Amino acid sequence: MRRYANDENSLVRKIQASLGLERRDASSSLRLGIGDDAALWRPSPGREVVLTCDWFLEGVHFRRDAHPADSVGWKCLARAVSDIAAMGGTPRCFLLSLALPESHIARWMDDLLSGLRRASREFRCPPAGGDTTRSNEILISITAVGEVESRNAALRSGARPGDLIGVSGRLGEAQLGLELLLLDKSAARTKCQAMEKHLYPFPRVEIARRLAAQELVTSMMDVSDGLAMDLRRLCAASGVGATIDEESLPLASPTNHPNVSRQKRLDAALHGGDDYELLFTVSRNERKSLPRRVAGVPLTIIGEIQAGRGIFLLGRDGRRAPLETSGWDPFQIGTKNKS
Amino acid sequence: MRRYANDENSLVRKIQASLGLERRDASSSLRLGIGDDAALWRPSPGREVVLTCDWFLEGVHFRRDAHPADSVGWKCLARAVSDIAAMGGTPRCFLLSLALPESHIARWMDDLLSGLRRASREFRCPPAGGDTTRSNEILISITAVGEVESRNAALRSGARPGDLIGVSGRLGEAQLGLELLLLDKSAARTKCQAMEKHLYPFPRVEIARRLAAQELVTSMMDVSDGLAMDLRRLCAASGVGATIDEESLPLASPTNHPNVSRQKRLDAALHGGDDYELLFTVSRNERKSLPRRVAGVPLTIIGEIQAGRGIFLLGRDGRRAPLETSGWDPFQIGTKNKS
Repeated sequence: MRRYANDENSLVRKIQASLGLERRDASSSLRLGIGDDAALWRPSPGREVVLTCDWFLEGVHFRRDAHPADSVGWKCLARAVSDIAAMGGTPRCFLLSLALPESHIARWMDDLLSGLRRASREFRCPPAGGDTTRSNEILISITAVGEVESRNAALRSGARPGDLIGVSGRLGEAQLGLELLLLDKSAARTKCQAMEKHLYPFPRVEIARRLAAQELVTSMMDVSDGLAMDLRRLCAASGVGATIDEESLPLASPTNHPNVSRQKRLDAALHGGDDYELLFTVSRNERKSLPRRVAGVPLTIIGEIQAGRGIFLLGRDGRRAPLETSGWDPFQIGTKNKS
Repeated sequence: MRRYANDENSLVRKIQASLGLERRDASSSLRLGIGDDAALWRPSPGREVVLTCDWFLEGVHFRRDAHPADSVGWKCLARAVSDIAAMGGTPRCFLLSLALPESHIARWMDDLLSGLRRASREFRCPPAGGDTTRSNEILISITAVGEVESRNAALRSGARPGDLIGVSGRLGEAQLGLELLLLDKSAARTKCQAMEKHLYPFPRVEIARRLAAQELVTSMMDVSDGLAMDLRRLCAASGVGATIDEESLPLASPTNHPNVSRQKRLDAALHGGDDYELLFTVSRNERKSLPRRVAGVPLTIIGEIQAGRGIFLLGRDGRRAPLETSGWDPFQIGTKNKS
């Protein structure tokens, strides 16, 4: 069959125009974006380049019938930028691999690009290039590129027994937002905090950068698959165990969720996905140096790192029980993992 | 449902082990690979970073029933590395986004990783990280990262009227290999040159690097969607037209394809995909400096750049006719385009 050369070119032009590539800032470190075989980008001298890629697939990470295209565009970039932030890095540019059904290259794609453009401007992370094709399902893969001062890069592997465990923001709100959305698809228009956090997460770039630059943290990662799962990953990378204090967890606010039980808010905080908050460890000596808030977002100590490999939850009743890591997948479709 | 934490971790470990990440070369510029939120890579001082991403999707770029998994692994990286080469760049590392059906995470994935590992070593392009998930179809997106001396980067946009048009190697062999494969799926085991070029293309990194470093070329790109289509892209980026001389085209050899008509070999050269040869322009003054062969691969002048926007084919009968760009898609499924 024909290759639709005109369609191809118009699709690429549409992406270029929509993402504002025609108005490239002459001072940008991105010398060449979409339209050649590859992009050219000049990193700052002496920095390390931070590289990450993330799937954002229909049926796994979002649902075509429930998630507004604008949110899909915002969130696919926010997720990748959150990984850059988790290293203490600053996002610089991204690549977009996009595959869409024929039926979606008109209005749906316009909305997708609109959300992506807003995120791109908000996170100061311009598009550098990409690849587009057609497919039956909506497939997105985003590669985000950032940079960091070498000595400031915050890895998962630096936590030591005795370190305190901290998180930014509140945990579980995005999960509660998703549950509202799945109950009632028109809820996407609700402007509640939980819905905003699920649809338009805001990666903690500035907080992470400050924590890493001041060398306050011994390890750091972002919480995207639930605290229980991600804490286990951090502990595995560091070769340590941990105990989390249930009482200190920054759950979703009961005022904002009057009809949601405390147990449900706790489950959402431990196992809910898409928080995009920071999980970090600090040595006890640095506890006083750790700000209580950065840019209005609270930082909360929730437990401590221990020798051994066990991960425990200290309940409000004073009992210490193993913290299970099996979260649940809201779409009951598949599993996702970060390699 | 459960998130299969153990499965996830074992999948990531399998990828790490298979791609040889446990034996990281201490001298590598890749400081941190798979396993953290993002990879850390240190580019050489003064170089520009070259970034590209490429889909490699079942049903669009390969067929599960016809293409050996080992070839899928090799080719998905070779395609992306070819884009780095087309800029005159040297590949440095890659990111792998991989989504597979449950049924394919055993033997099929082993074979995929085996092909990918061989390509990674051959192209000196180690894996830096990635993201894995499950899906009904086999989905691959590869981001390749390279570097180039700024002044040496070869863009598509530098061709000027009067420049000569050149290509590396022979054109159309991969297409003939694909046609053999679709006629007879067991043909993948055939060790003929056309089949090798279709299944295990070898990006022209060294040739491109030399052409770009010696500033011989005014523009360059790789031929992946057929000469007619890709020449049109190069001309559009440069704002010029071109005439190709049919007689001078380096077609697949008649000795190797005794049962294939000249017309068919010509069609394959003009419209067949997956050549991964270089298409470049040189000013007339540099013609004598252009080597006839680099590393055993011939470089052939096939036409010239002209003012205007038309793209023509000068036939063996001396007639000049517009060169149509509509290739055909072997899978009759969709279109692909590079943004």
